[in-house]
Amino acid sequence: MSTATDTVRAVVEAGGDGAARLMTRLERRLGELATGHGDGLARHAGETIAAGGKRLRPLLVFLSAGAPPPESDAMLRAAVAIELVHSATLVHDDVLDGSPLRRGRPTVVAAGGRLAATATGDLLFSRAFAELVGSRSVAAVRILARASRRLAAGELMQRADAWRAVSEARCIERCRLKTAVLFAAACELGALEGDGDAARLAAFGERIGLAFQLLDDVLDVSGPPERTGKPRGADLLDGTVNLPLIVARERDERLRQLDLRSIATPGDAAAVCARIAATGALEEVRSRALTLVADAKAELPTLPARQRAALELIADGVVERYS
Amino acid sequence: MSTATDTVRAVVEAGGDGAARLMTRLERRLGELATGHGDGLARHAGETIAAGGKRLRPLLVFLSAGAPPPESDAMLRAAVAIELVHSATLVHDDVLDGSPLRRGRPTVVAAGGRLAATATGDLLFSRAFAELVGSRSVAAVRILARASRRLAAGELMQRADAWRAVSEARCIERCRLKTAVLFAAACELGALEGDGDAARLAAFGERIGLAFQLLDDVLDVSGPPERTGKPRGADLLDGTVNLPLIVARERDERLRQLDLRSIATPGDAAAVCARIAATGALEEVRSRALTLVADAKAELPTLPARQRAALELIADGVVERYS
Repeated sequence: MSTATDTVRAVVEAGGDGAARLMTRLERRLGELATGHGDGLARHAGETIAAGGKRLRPLLVFLSAGAPPPESDAMLRAAVAIELVHSATLVHDDVLDGSPLRRGRPTVVAAGGRLAATATGDLLFSRAFAELVGSRSVAAVRILARASRRLAAGELMQRADAWRAVSEARCIERCRLKTAVLFAAACELGALEGDGDAARLAAFGERIGLAFQLLDDVLDVSGPPERTGKPRGADLLDGTVNLPLIVARERDERLRQLDLRSIATPGDAAAVCARIAATGALEEVRSRALTLVADAKAELPTLPARQRAALELIADGVVERYS
Repeated sequence: MSTATDTVRAVVEAGGDGAARLMTRLERRLGELATGHGDGLARHAGETIAAGGKRLRPLLVFLSAGAPPPESDAMLRAAVAIELVHSATLVHDDVLDGSPLRRGRPTVVAAGGRLAATATGDLLFSRAFAELVGSRSVAAVRILARASRRLAAGELMQRADAWRAVSEARCIERCRLKTAVLFAAACELGALEGDGDAARLAAFGERIGLAFQLLDDVLDVSGPPERTGKPRGADLLDGTVNLPLIVARERDERLRQLDLRSIATPGDAAAVCARIAATGALEEVRSRALTLVADAKAELPTLPARQRAALELIADGVVERYS
C-alpha cells in the first residue's frame, strides 16, 4: 500500500530541488508559527499545525507554479496560508464532531474544550490572512477570502442538511464547498506565480479535491477503524448524509425507509455501513472518484512535462491513499 | 439618559452629509449581504448583521478619514469589513457564553446550535476579508488581519485565565486584545483614506475601545438586567475575572478568599456583585475609563476642528451609554 508520505516524497522529487527546499522552508515557517506563542499563535493552535499532516495543499501551491517552482517569498506565504486555513477548518470541524483524536493526538476541542477550540480556529484563520498579505498580493488575498467563505458555507450546509434526504447534486455541492474549493484555491495561488492556465489548474484542484472527499466518505463506510482512526459510520452518527448512503438508498428499500436518527450507537452505525456496502455503493462512488481524477488530469496537457508529471503524482496519491 | 442612537445621530450630523450618505450606503450593503444567502451569507449570518447595533466601529472608520469623509468605495468596504468582523466575534462570543439573546433577538447559537454558530462566525470573518480586498488595498487587509488575530488571541486568553487570580495588567491586556484592537483598526482603516496621523488615530481608537470594555465590565456588575439584557454577574458565572472584581478583591478580604468556582447560580452572582459594588470598585473602574477617554481626546488636537468634534462625540458616546 502506498502511503501519503511516499506520495509526498515522490512529488517533491518530481518537483526538483526547488520543491524540496520550499517544503523545508514551509515546515520551518509552520514550526516558527507553532512556537511563537506571544504575538503569534497560542499553544493549541501551535500544536495543531506542528502535528503535521500530508501537506498536500502546500504541494499543490508549489507545483501549480512550476516544476521546479519559483522559490519566492510569495510562494512560501501562499503555501503557509493555505495550510493554516486547512488547520483552522480541522480545529472547527473537530468542535463540530466532538472528535477526541486527530493525527494520533488529542484534538484541540478534547484538550482545551469547545471554547478554546473555537477561538483557536479563529486565530489560525486570521493568521493565514496575515501571512498571505505579507506578499502584497491583492489577488492572493482575494482567492483565500473566497475559498474561506465557501468552506464556511459548506460547513453550514452540512449542519442544515443533517439527517435529511438530500439529493446527490446537493451532496456533491457540499463536498465541493467543504473540501474541493481549498484544493482549487491552492492551485490558483500557485498559478499566480507561474505561467500555467489558472482556470485549468483551478479545475484540476477542484476535481482532485472532490475525489478526495468522495474517497474519504467511502472510507467512513468501509473502515476499518484501525486505518481511519475513527469508528465506521462516523458520518451516520453525526447526521452527515454522504454519497455512499445516497447511492445505497437508491438501491435498497430498507435503507430508504430507515430513520437516520435511529442510528444511535457505533454498533448501529456499523450495521448500517455493512448494509450500504452490500449494495455495491462503495464501488460506485469509488468509480466516480476515479473518473474525477482522470478528468482532473485532462486539464494538464498544456503544462510542461515535468510539472504535469508532478501534478499527476499528486492526483494519483489522492487515490492511492485508499487502494 | 443619552442613547446610543442619539450618539450616532449627533456624530453623523457632525460628520456632514457625506457621513450620512456613507452610513446609508453601509446599511444598504450590510442588508444586501444579509439577504444574499446563495454565494453570500447564510441565514444565521444574515440575521446577525441585519439585527443592527450601534455601528460605532463604522462611524470610527468614516470619521477617522475626515469630516466630511471621502465617499469612496474603499471607505465603504473598510466600514463593512470592520462591522462583519465585529459580528463574527459576537457570534463566536455567544457560542462561548451560551447566550440566549443578543440585541433582543435569539442568538445564532440559541437558534441554530453551537455548530451552526461556529460556521456562521467563520463565514462572517471570511466575508469581511472578501469585502475588504475589493478595495485592492494590501495595507487595509494587513490591518484587518492583525486585528482579527489579536481578537482571537484575546478570546483564548479569556478562556485560559478563567477563574484564575489574574493581575490588573493582564486583565487590561485581555480587554485591549478582545475589544480595543478593533476600535484601533477601525481608526487605522479610516486614516488610510484621510490626512490624519494614523498612529494617533489608532491610539485614540484603542483608548476609547478600552474604556468601552471597562464600562461594559462595570455594567456587568452593576446591572440592572433590564438595561443590560443579561443577568448581573454574567462574567462571574462564566469565570471571566474582570477589572471591577480585581479591584474589589484588593479591598475586601472576603472577596479575596472567595472561590470563584463556587458561584453557581444567578443568585450567587448577584450577591457577589453587590459585594463588589460595596467596595467602591465600580467608581474606581469608571474613573479609569473616563481618564482613558480624556487621554483618547488628547490624541486629536492636530486634526481639523470639525473632524475632532465628531470623534470627540464618539468618545463621549462611549461614556454616555453608561451614565
